[in-house]
Amino acid sequence: MFYLVGLGLGDAKDITVKGLEVVKRAKRVYLEAYTSILTVGKEALEKYYGREIILADRDMVEQSSDELMADSDTEDVAFLVVGDPLGATTHTDLILRAVEKGIQYRIIHNASIMNAIGCCGLQLYNFGEAVSIVFWTDDWRPDSFYDKIAVNRERGMHTLCLLDIKMKEQSIENLMKGRKIYEPPRFMPVSLAAEQLLKIVEKKAAEEKTDKNALAADTVCVGLARVGAEDQKIVAGTLKQLTSVNLGGPLHSLVIPGHMHPLEMDMLRLFALDDSVKELLTSSQ
Amino acid sequence: MFYLVGLGLGDAKDITVKGLEVVKRAKRVYLEAYTSILTVGKEALEKYYGREIILADRDMVEQSSDELMADSDTEDVAFLVVGDPLGATTHTDLILRAVEKGIQYRIIHNASIMNAIGCCGLQLYNFGEAVSIVFWTDDWRPDSFYDKIAVNRERGMHTLCLLDIKMKEQSIENLMKGRKIYEPPRFMPVSLAAEQLLKIVEKKAAEEKTDKNALAADTVCVGLARVGAEDQKIVAGTLKQLTSVNLGGPLHSLVIPGHMHPLEMDMLRLFALDDSVKELLTSSQ
Repeated sequence: MFYLVGLGLGDAKDITVKGLEVVKRAKRVYLEAYTSILTVGKEALEKYYGREIILADRDMVEQSSDELMADSDTEDVAFLVVGDPLGATTHTDLILRAVEKGIQYRIIHNASIMNAIGCCGLQLYNFGEAVSIVFWTDDWRPDSFYDKIAVNRERGMHTLCLLDIKMKEQSIENLMKGRKIYEPPRFMPVSLAAEQLLKIVEKKAAEEKTDKNALAADTVCVGLARVGAEDQKIVAGTLKQLTSVNLGGPLHSLVIPGHMHPLEMDMLRLFALDDSVKELLTSSQ
Repeated sequence: MFYLVGLGLGDAKDITVKGLEVVKRAKRVYLEAYTSILTVGKEALEKYYGREIILADRDMVEQSSDELMADSDTEDVAFLVVGDPLGATTHTDLILRAVEKGIQYRIIHNASIMNAIGCCGLQLYNFGEAVSIVFWTDDWRPDSFYDKIAVNRERGMHTLCLLDIKMKEQSIENLMKGRKIYEPPRFMPVSLAAEQLLKIVEKKAAEEKTDKNALAADTVCVGLARVGAEDQKIVAGTLKQLTSVNLGGPLHSLVIPGHMHPLEMDMLRLFALDDSVKELLTSSQ
């Protein structure tokens, strides 16, 4: 059996009991290490699980599935994924390849940012489409996610913004020369996401492309860091304020609320950066 | 500490290791027993956890939070919730009451239907707003969820339909007489949800209120039962076909796809009821 096992969001103990049993008995244990960052390191997992873990990078998963799945028709192989195996990042291609090879698979679900985001108090069924905010470069500044946020807000829905991470990025020079030399991993903090978003907001305002649901510098948004971990941080502040918060290490997420119920506002007030934000959360947004 | 512990979706072993540690050391362990149905019973949990579990019904949670949270300022109390504590059903009111009483709380996240639904192969970030389909009665047949599905489809988004469950329902007579006598629990199967939906589709067609994105009897939809459990079932069939599938015991969910990527269609084909559905999943929907 080929098991896709979700690790949840915090540390080694966020695996489910069922998942841990699979890890302990599996012939080989892989850790998907290119689309997310575990709050604890591979070593912490190895120590807690008492198993050697093989890091699986994108090349391995996409090009060496024979190797990855070897013997999983007769023995158990575990493929660990931070969060849920089919959460923010999907591994359906892996499932399809398993089925093609006649290998049985099973998914051991766990929390992912897509549902744990409920910890900020905004109700999951009031979230519309999630968006991704990527690192801008000097000449590539995509802003299409703004329109999705706008559509969600128009319908009163909240938006979860998944923030970019770059795990094994090659410089353009190394890429062109075919050198497998990678830049250090980096992740987008809430402050940078808010900054990029604020620039779009200002541009739209200058072009007078705004309406009553439009985001503004004083719209209350929610910044989250390390959701599910012991040192999780949640702050509610205006978009402008969030450009200067420091929420520490990865991973970060940003939520843009739509219409809020009183109970949702009550919850966000718990995380308000200051009294002016509490004030904004008392009046209807 | 007042712990809200997610149990995940399958059986007793779907709790996280961290959650299990809390359950084992808590002074009291409650199980929220009115918004969801655990695939295994309370007894199975008690046996596996080695702890007595107190069933918490709606009255208790909404009216007796003093009792529920007693001593949790100095000791650990665990409140177990099927899925994620802040998943399809929210318990933010409980958190607010804890904070009001000066009691610290912690959430132990887990999978919920809101993210585990990814098991059907449709990608989570392509889901729009989720909807609820409730039991129709002779004189109460709400259909507003249809418009939400239509809006999602117009934007190419998938829709997760959460299907009604009635856990401690009183008959109108008993309710009026103030008798706390409850009807047996019931849950909506995929077939009934599809039937209700098909009736709306036919009504809209008769009123000529349809467009190219409109749902039709031959739209491929996905029926799911007991997601995350060992005997989970997933079927892809036309809306019409789903009105006559029998997916067994609770809980069921229904997904109405929007625009599908080739990889998503490849996955759905794994669950196709018959070749005609596979055919529909080859052409673009």
